[in-house]
Amino acid sequence: MAHLECSVCGKKFELSYLTEGHYVCDVDEANLNFIHDYEAIAKDVRENGLNREQKNNMFRYSAFLPVDSSKLAERAPAVPVGGTPLVSAPRLAKELGIPSCNLWLKDDSKNPTGSLKDRASSLLVVRMQEDGAPVITTASTGNAGAALAGMCASTPVRQKAYIFVPKTAPAAKIAQLQIFGAEVILVDGTYDDAFALCLEASSKHGWYCRNTGYNAYTAEGKKTVSLEMCEQLAHGGQFGCVHHAQFVAPDYVAVSVGDGNIITGVYKGLRDLYKAGLIEKMPKLVGVNSDKSNWCATAWKKNLTPAEMLTMEPVEANTRADSISAGIARDGINAVQAIRDTQGCFVEVDDDSILAHIKTVSQATGVFPEPAAACAAAGITKLASKGYFEGGSTVVAVMTGTGIKDIPAAVSVCGEPFVLKRREDGQFHLEDFMQ
Amino acid sequence: MAHLECSVCGKKFELSYLTEGHYVCDVDEANLNFIHDYEAIAKDVRENGLNREQKNNMFRYSAFLPVDSSKLAERAPAVPVGGTPLVSAPRLAKELGIPSCNLWLKDDSKNPTGSLKDRASSLLVVRMQEDGAPVITTASTGNAGAALAGMCASTPVRQKAYIFVPKTAPAAKIAQLQIFGAEVILVDGTYDDAFALCLEASSKHGWYCRNTGYNAYTAEGKKTVSLEMCEQLAHGGQFGCVHHAQFVAPDYVAVSVGDGNIITGVYKGLRDLYKAGLIEKMPKLVGVNSDKSNWCATAWKKNLTPAEMLTMEPVEANTRADSISAGIARDGINAVQAIRDTQGCFVEVDDDSILAHIKTVSQATGVFPEPAAACAAAGITKLASKGYFEGGSTVVAVMTGTGIKDIPAAVSVCGEPFVLKRREDGQFHLEDFMQ
Ligand SMILES: Cc1ncc(COP(=O)(O)O)c(C=O)c1O
Ligand SMILES: Cc1ncc(COP(=O)(O)O)c(C=O)c1O
Repeated sequence: MAHLECSVCGKKFELSYLTEGHYVCDVDEANLNFIHDYEAIAKDVRENGLNREQKNNMFRYSAFLPVDSSKLAERAPAVPVGGTPLVSAPRLAKELGIPSCNLWLKDDSKNPTGSLKDRASSLLVVRMQEDGAPVITTASTGNAGAALAGMCASTPVRQKAYIFVPKTAPAAKIAQLQIFGAEVILVDGTYDDAFALCLEASSKHGWYCRNTGYNAYTAEGKKTVSLEMCEQLAHGGQFGCVHHAQFVAPDYVAVSVGDGNIITGVYKGLRDLYKAGLIEKMPKLVGVNSDKSNWCATAWKKNLTPAEMLTMEPVEANTRADSISAGIARDGINAVQAIRDTQGCFVEVDDDSILAHIKTVSQATGVFPEPAAACAAAGITKLASKGYFEGGSTVVAVMTGTGIKDIPAAVSVCGEPFVLKRREDGQFHLEDFMQ
Repeated sequence: MAHLECSVCGKKFELSYLTEGHYVCDVDEANLNFIHDYEAIAKDVRENGLNREQKNNMFRYSAFLPVDSSKLAERAPAVPVGGTPLVSAPRLAKELGIPSCNLWLKDDSKNPTGSLKDRASSLLVVRMQEDGAPVITTASTGNAGAALAGMCASTPVRQKAYIFVPKTAPAAKIAQLQIFGAEVILVDGTYDDAFALCLEASSKHGWYCRNTGYNAYTAEGKKTVSLEMCEQLAHGGQFGCVHHAQFVAPDYVAVSVGDGNIITGVYKGLRDLYKAGLIEKMPKLVGVNSDKSNWCATAWKKNLTPAEMLTMEPVEANTRADSISAGIARDGINAVQAIRDTQGCFVEVDDDSILAHIKTVSQATGVFPEPAAACAAAGITKLASKGYFEGGSTVVAVMTGTGIKDIPAAVSVCGEPFVLKRREDGQFHLEDFMQ
């Protein structure tokens, strides 16, 4: 039967524990994980296929999701979340040093507000309505907040959100919060400060708290990225027919890691499929940390147990890749366990490599990633140089957010373009450009 | 039989005229229009459905497009262009003053580089390969260039592009050109200057010229937005099955207008469907001009003939909505004729209304448009206040580009967000925000 389980002590809870306003384990305050009834999912998918009313968005997979699927038409955002492209990238495979692999980009920058975070926020705005919560709140490095603001604006009945972000977040992400009409609190501090303030506000005002990892539904929403990539791999990159769902697992999935909630979601989606007998193997997960925000890689290298990670000190977090700058990885325990369970690895890359890969990915594919997304490609390059990837294997790199939100990052690797001016004769002369 | 026809004098040309390096009519230098063999299209679609190999992008409709569909796997961009959401927008319908209409947003900001221009550029990069052109060039207010740069980066064999944009284009659009690896020439002048320079470069160096309107294929690519919206309207907003194509026309389509090439494309897509017997009526087209760049609205109000429009003076073009700032509408003749043919209208809106509608659209739908896209919504508001739209009708507003490329525009209507600072005790106090 479906239930919740503590990510550290393993204590089990009924699903009602969450709807009663609890978020974390009452013993050790660790994050909870959803454990589904995999036989029920398998049976549902085999007999009914996927959700045809919602076929162009992530609720296509409502059989795997903790939502009342009969009410989605009234509660889900009108903008389609998910259904993002899986882009074949043979030229990029060469650039990254894995020419013999089948490299795909799962382009989640094409989500409504430009990042994978829309998947969590979409599920959460449905849940808040199911649970009758009038207000939702989150802390965010920027994307999660933009996603929540956008989803709250897009539901049939508009939802109210309070969002805490560090003042240093890119201007585009802050502007998104505002344009979608959320209440914005710019915190003159770090993401960790914003996180603490959000928890305080949530408990003081009774607001529903969407904080990454802390709310178990975030990973449940994000896991749809894995359901999609496996369905797309079964059909040469396209989605199949809702009546006969088919899935094929890749060999590796590379994901950038800050809080570790995305990679936890990626893992959950794969594990759901595997436990339901819908894929035949688990891929190896590759978690890519910035070396200037490496909580997860550190815990993994030290081989810490979940209980040890619970009391691990924060790391310094000051990477240019703002979305993955997190002193404490709020879903780090799950992330490290996911890497262990799949015999994958963590790898650390530096900011120069992250920025350089924005250009590499853009020029080889037409997908323009933000720094935190390019980070996944940088990790592949680093591992490829050590011969990590087996030849002929299928590799998916998740592009978690769009580069258009961070123009200064792109400009920093491109330099200034040529400006053609009028000469003294008042005319433009093409030769001034072409020499 | 398929052929080309001059938009002013009606002179007919064989298709080979284009592949031989001509762009415009040899009599009056006016733009050419593609005239398809509608019976052949109808037969093809009835017998074979849509293109199933390309079902998740605009080449799904290759039956309607002047491309060799057997070679698309080798030539089309890997990132999917088109297949964008049609978003039901009942809350926005109320805000705009048409509560009894079925309002939909065709959200073309979800294209790979964030604008509808990807549709033209995608077709053009396929054509340049078909025609064996080694280099392509375009002038652009920003989006068309970003689209061309992105598409050139995304084809299986990378294509080379030179792009002329006014130096005043938004930073995000310029950064896109660079990150995708195009050769960028920032022109210290207007879009009209860039246009002239691009024509000169094209003829001097033999580069293939993608200039909007001037190249007849641009409207052919853009017309796919209409094929999509009609297919989606036939299936409650979703795409149907490629084996049994079905289409339903809306009653009105509202589009913002600068050069008039997008609305020309919208018209062509609808007319193709109508002439092929695949929709039962032509919708009324609503062209929305900024009052600070109103070439088309002016020509329409003055009731000028095509020949008169050919020699019409430029208007002043200095709207804040940079994408529709064009002193000469480069496809204005076709645009005005499209409005006449569908018994639609042009409407002019001011910049304040354009900017205000960025927020209105964002908060009512979760779709965040750039100024030039919000312009279409502003036009609906203005016409609605005069009782233009018949109650109960279906209205589609095309959201032509994403707001995330123009953050200053969004900020100008949102104001500064609240900043929470530490007090002298070194702590944050929530009360400082909530009072
Ligand atoms: C674009 C992008 N990439 C990667 C991440 C990392 O996800 P997580 O913090 O869950 O590890 C984030 C999170 O903010 C993100 O926005
Ligand atoms: C976002 C956006 N909207 C509208 C337009 C207007 O299209 P056209 O110039 O073909 O009328 C453009 C053209 O650049 C655009 O980029």
